[in-house]
This record gives sequence, C-alpha cells and structure tokens, in this order.
Amino acid sequence: MFQAAAKTFSVAPTASVCRGILSSIRQYCKKTPTKLRVSEALSSAELGTNVKVQGWVRSVRPQKANLFLHVNDGSSLQSLQIVAGSELLTFGSAVEVTGILKKSPNQKQTVELEADQIHVVGECNPVDFPFKIKERHGLEYIRQFPHLRCRTNAFSSLLRVRSEATTAIHSYFKENGFVQIHTPIITSNDCEGAGELFQVEPSGPEHEEGENFFSVPAFLTVSGQLHLEVMSGAFSRVYTFGPTFRAENSQSRRHLAEFYMVEAEVSFTQSLEDLTKVMEDMFRSATEHVLAHCAEDVALFHKHVTPGHRWGCDLQTEHEKYLVKHCGNIPVFVTDYPYDLKPFYARDNQDHPKHTAAAVDLLVPGVGELCGGSLREERLDLLRARLEEVGLEETYSWYLDLRRFGSVPHGGFGLGFERFLQCILGIDNIKDVTPFPRFSHSCLL
Amino acid sequence: MFQAAAKTFSVAPTASVCRGILSSIRQYCKKTPTKLRVSEALSSAELGTNVKVQGWVRSVRPQKANLFLHVNDGSSLQSLQIVAGSELLTFGSAVEVTGILKKSPNQKQTVELEADQIHVVGECNPVDFPFKIKERHGLEYIRQFPHLRCRTNAFSSLLRVRSEATTAIHSYFKENGFVQIHTPIITSNDCEGAGELFQVEPSGPEHEEGENFFSVPAFLTVSGQLHLEVMSGAFSRVYTFGPTFRAENSQSRRHLAEFYMVEAEVSFTQSLEDLTKVMEDMFRSATEHVLAHCAEDVALFHKHVTPGHRWGCDLQTEHEKYLVKHCGNIPVFVTDYPYDLKPFYARDNQDHPKHTAAAVDLLVPGVGELCGGSLREERLDLLRARLEEVGLEETYSWYLDLRRFGSVPHGGFGLGFERFLQCILGIDNIKDVTPFPRFSHSCLL
Repeated sequence: MFQAAAKTFSVAPTASVCRGILSSIRQYCKKTPTKLRVSEALSSAELGTNVKVQGWVRSVRPQKANLFLHVNDGSSLQSLQIVAGSELLTFGSAVEVTGILKKSPNQKQTVELEADQIHVVGECNPVDFPFKIKERHGLEYIRQFPHLRCRTNAFSSLLRVRSEATTAIHSYFKENGFVQIHTPIITSNDCEGAGELFQVEPSGPEHEEGENFFSVPAFLTVSGQLHLEVMSGAFSRVYTFGPTFRAENSQSRRHLAEFYMVEAEVSFTQSLEDLTKVMEDMFRSATEHVLAHCAEDVALFHKHVTPGHRWGCDLQTEHEKYLVKHCGNIPVFVTDYPYDLKPFYARDNQDHPKHTAAAVDLLVPGVGELCGGSLREERLDLLRARLEEVGLEETYSWYLDLRRFGSVPHGGFGLGFERFLQCILGIDNIKDVTPFPRFSHSCLL
Repeated sequence: MFQAAAKTFSVAPTASVCRGILSSIRQYCKKTPTKLRVSEALSSAELGTNVKVQGWVRSVRPQKANLFLHVNDGSSLQSLQIVAGSELLTFGSAVEVTGILKKSPNQKQTVELEADQIHVVGECNPVDFPFKIKERHGLEYIRQFPHLRCRTNAFSSLLRVRSEATTAIHSYFKENGFVQIHTPIITSNDCEGAGELFQVEPSGPEHEEGENFFSVPAFLTVSGQLHLEVMSGAFSRVYTFGPTFRAENSQSRRHLAEFYMVEAEVSFTQSLEDLTKVMEDMFRSATEHVLAHCAEDVALFHKHVTPGHRWGCDLQTEHEKYLVKHCGNIPVFVTDYPYDLKPFYARDNQDHPKHTAAAVDLLVPGVGELCGGSLREERLDLLRARLEEVGLEETYSWYLDLRRFGSVPHGGFGLGFERFLQCILGIDNIKDVTPFPRFSHSCLL
C-alpha cells in the first residue's frame, strides 16, 4: 500500500504495550483493523479492538521507554495519543498507525492507541518545515504560509468553525422556509457607477482590445441584493450566501477584497421589526449551533489566541463604540437612518420634516457593523421619482418592472460572514478568519 | 398596513362561502387569522380556521357566481385555490387573502380558502406583463426576462430544485465528515497559462494603468482543486461548492462563463475505487434527496417541459455516447486515461509501456461528462520531475511543499452542478438551470 519508498516500523513492544496486546490478543487475531477517524477513535466505546488511524503527527514526546505521539486528521481539535516504542518519527509527518485502542491511564484523554505498527506515509523535514514542535506560533506568523497554516491547531480550528457556521446558516434558512438562490458573481450592474468595483475581461492576447466579452462592461458583485429582490417577486423568503468583492485599496484589519455575505429578502414585510426578528434569530441560531458543535475549537480562541477579548477596539468609529457601550456591550440595532444617506432602494418613511428611511444596522461589540438592512421602496411612483432624480431610471428599468408587476412590501439585510466569525471567536484581523485572504497587493496562491 | 393606494375588496359572500363562514363563525370571532404559507395551508389539517395567505395570482377562473384564484408564494409548485366573489383581480398581481380554510369539493386539491377579504397588495397590468394567463411559455421565451422568469411555474420549480439539490450536496458531505472550505474566487494561479481565463482589475479612472491591484495578475478561479489540496495536508476529507469561471467564447447549450462546481478531496486514498465510491454515493444521495423532497417539481419537468428526455443528444462526442449506450444507458465510470493527456497533478500509474494516469470521468446519459477526478501525484520526486519538464517548478514551489511536508496519497473530483441538474431534470439548455446565466455577449442584470 502507498508508495514503496515509505518506511514501516515494527514497534518494539514495551511492557505497557505488551499488556494491551495480550489482553486483546484473541480479538486482534480474528479480524483486520477497523479504520477510524481520530474523532471516532476518541469517542469510541470499543476498547480493546484493533484499529487503524491515519493522520499527521502534531507532537512527539519521548518518555522513559515509550514515545508518545499525538496524531490529528482534522476531524477534531483533540489529537489521538499514540503509545509507541520508536523514536524515529518527526513532527509534521503523515503516519498510518495500527494497534489496540485502550483506556488511557492519563486523565488528559480517555483513550489512547497502543501502536503495533507505525507506517510513515509522508516524511517531514523539521528543519525546513516552518512550524516548530512545541512552539505556539502567532496568527500573524502562520499567515505567511497560506499553503501550510491549516496544519496548525489554531487555523484548523478556525476552518472547522467556519465550516460549521456555514452549515448553521444554511440550516437556519432551510428550517425557516427560505429558498437559496445562487445570485451571480459577474454582473453588469455597476452600482450607480460607484468606485471600488473589480472589472472582468478575458486575459490573454487572443482577446480583442476594446471589445467586451459580455458586450457590456462586467463587474464582480458587491451584493446579491438586487438579484434577490428579483426572486422576491415569486418567493416570499429567499437568501444567498456567497462571495462578494470590493476593490478597496486597504490593508486594514477590517477589509478584504473578497469576502462572504449572507443576504436575505423577505416579502410581505410590514415593518423593520419583521427584519430585525430574522436578523436576531439567525445570529442567535448560528452562534448557538457553533458553540454547541465546536465548543473545543471556540474555547481554543477564547483561551489562547485572543485573551481578554481586546480585539478591534481602536478600529470602530466613536459613534458605534458609544452606542454599543451605552447599551451594556451587547448587540444593538440602530434603525431609521436619515433618508439622504441611504441608497435609492431604501423605503421612504415619509416622516417629514425629519425624513428618514426604514433602514437598520446591527452593531456588535468589538466588530462594529455586522449587518445592514432596510425595507425596500416597493411603491412604483416613489421609486421612479428617486431614480429620475439621480438619472438612473433607464439603467434600472428592470428594477422598476419588479414594482410594476405584482409589487409587494419587502425588505432584506446582509451579514458580513467574516465579521460574524471575528465576533464569535474574538479574532482581531479579518485575514485570520478566511482560508485565502485577498487584499490590495496580496493574492497568494 | 401596506401602501395606502392599494385596493381592498370586501368579498360579496356567495352561498357556498356563507356556509363556510357560518360553520366556523364562533372560532372566527375569537381570534385573528393565522398567517400561513401556501405550502402550510395545503397540508393543514385545521380546517375551519381563519387564516391569512399572501402571494401572487397564478390563475383566475370565473365560474358561475364565484371566482376561483390560484395563489402561489413560492413555497410549493401547487397553488392554493381561493374561492372569491369578485372579478377585479388580474393574473400576476400580489394579494393578501383572509378567510376560512376548508375541504375542497374538487378532487384536484384537498383544501381551498373561502375568501372573506382580498387585499390587492401590488397590481399587475396584464397587457404589459410578458407572461400571459393560461399560456404555457417555453423555456426559451421566459429566458428573455431574467428579472421575471421566477414567476413562472417552470422556473420557480427549477429554483426550488436547485436550492434543494444544494442542501442535499452539503448534507451528504456533512454526514460523511467532510469539512467545507471556501476556496478563493480570485487567484493568482493562472493554470499553466491556459486560455479561457478571466482577469480581474479595479475599474474606473482612479486605477493606475499598468499596475496590478494585487501586485500580480489575478484571475477568476477555474477550479478549487489546488486550494483544496492545501487543506488535504491537515484534513482527511474536504470539499468546496461554489462558482467557477471560463472565458469560453461559446453560446452553446452546454457552456456558461459562470457555473457551479462541487469539488472534493480525500486524503489517504489508496485507489480510484476510493474516489468512485464517493462520487457514486454523492450522486445517488443528492438525486434521492431531490426526488424525495421535490417530487412535484421534478415531475413538472419530466411531464411538460422536456417530454421524451431527448435532451442534449446531438451535443455529445460519439465516444461518450457510445460508451454510455454500450453500458445500457446508465452512468458509466471511465478510468485510467493516457498519462500524457492529463494535467501535471494526475498520479502516474507507472504501467509502461501503456502508461496511464489514475484519472476517472463519470459519464451520464444525455449530459456526457458529469464528473472528472484523479488520484493526485503525492510523490515529490515524480511531481517535481514533471513540473521541471514543463518549466513550472518555480511557479508551483508551494504545491511541491505540500509533498515535502507530510505528504499523503490523496485524490479528488469535481462535479458540474448545472450538468447534474440538467441530468436529473432532463433540461436541454444549461441556461435554463441557473438563475442568471452568463455567457459570451450576455450578462443581463
């Protein structure tokens, strides 16, 4: 099996290993080892059975006659302790271990694997490998190695949390009757000629200069909202969860050129409370799901990586900071913004002379703005008047059509997924919550 | 509630409506109507209760003293039949109906709603509206109206199936211990300088000519494979499900510039069978889920939209057609392709003089290639030699690193999500299975 060049050790059994082997020798002879993932082995009740585990060596600790290894395969933060007799294994190498699963005498873990055979599947030169045994590398250090940082405890925890949070968000919407829409990444909608857009054209010499591939200029989406609104004319609840883009010339801890947004639209909404209820429910439900399913991973961040929850404090506007603090450092909804500050689609509250729009932001401690939403202007005459004012009536004639044919009061919101992760994990820099961060002057791999 | 300009009808009760109202008058007086989605109303066992339903009018049928409406809110293909007394309602308008839910005398539906009040939330001018009552519009016709086509039965069914198939795929991977990775959309990996890439740069005059935003040329991803392989060094099972891009100058029924791929990588794989098992399990599981959860929607396509399953037959290569037909018109795996035809990462089977690579395609009737996969070359020396041959050793030094540090035998595959939908629904044109199709010379909205 595997490549011929790999090494296979026959482990010289120590006294303790012998006991384990002897106690289950009959069972061992009867059947081939059961292949288990590390998480399965850790929670297995079938002690004394012969198992096979595959993974990467996360620690090596020689002690008396034995060598203690920790092997991890990404299925959990906790590694499986291997009791071996050889000392020729290096940190970072890939191994396949067969042996007997037994109760661990150490309280740190419930089970351990007494190795019968350890097969080195892939070696790892500790001199060249940028992560060193027993060192706790900072997030900033590991960020330099986008192709290897998933091999650290911190970043593999982050990736499990990110995956579980994604599941949680899809589950919330699914359970509440939302239809998922894949809104387009490439769009001809230039968002009122706003800056910070990426434009898309084929590369290479065969592409004719001056002619657009799509016949019109095409951009990377900054939001799926308008496309979701299309669907709001036939589905009363829709959402999208995917990448969005800003060509922002910033290397700050708060901005990425490519980030994920969760966006939802609800038809037949009657007030901002209809929206804030969905925003709050989703936030609660996703957070509870992550805390329930990734308790160990979350705890790692709260204990080691970001002690004291001091993240991001200098980055918020004084305004947001004040509001969140004033309310007792809890998430805060801010509603009914001045009409003139909001985009054309925000619904006019018609409350002159104050004149506000039915818009809402959700501010959270440490991160600032996590969600933004609004009721959308569903009244054809008001929407048309506003688009005429800014000279965009023709560009958005399709959007006006949505109000011409069976228009309904509706509203929606967007949540910045990376900011959500920063918020629940207490991670200072947005580059540390995304697998391959893209920002100005950086697009590694 | 809602806009002041909207009309509210007091329905003149007919004999039949009266009976319904009388039978439940006590209950009606006691409580405000329960808001139900159409799918909830259709499956409700609580007949005689006072309910409120909101949606769009999908049909209007005057009969004797009554008017029969079908109201749909996207929650199911089936609409709720409303028995009303007014004749002022038009096809396509948005309504809010309150009344009594009761057993329908007609066998076509189990329940119907005897309207007490119908509120027109948003009107729809039948002259301007491109879809006409009682007409069955073809997929090609409705494709011209990307902002309105979700209001047809066919396309709303497609969107529900697409959403449910997405859920099914995530569920399959989740249940099988895969971690979801958001592989990047923007990448500096130019895929060996292959053509058909989209390049990305900020738009607008403030962008300096000749300087790259990311300091290097950046492209839209054509596959998340290499980024998934990074994760294969710490997680034994990972997948990604997201948009990918090809700047293919084609308007054929088989190609889009933006389409969705499901990609998975499995570490510690020992043979192509490890991969084909995952491919087959996922395909079966997703298909069964869709058939179980969207039976009505799928049936619509099989009955009306694509009668006879004749789709796509002229588009496949003779080769693929022959193979699938030869095997009895079932899905077919083709394995072990000539080494020289496969990309640098495909694992060398070292079976000279035949010399094949451990690659596999899944061909399905009607669609042709649905999945492609391979074992990846995990042996540093062989991979380096091949990259040297093509002069890419430096470009892929990070990829070689993955083999330097704890390399494991691994493999993976990609599935074209739109082709999967075409396959299970029997839809001829790929533009009809995606909400906003992008292809050469077309990027609507």
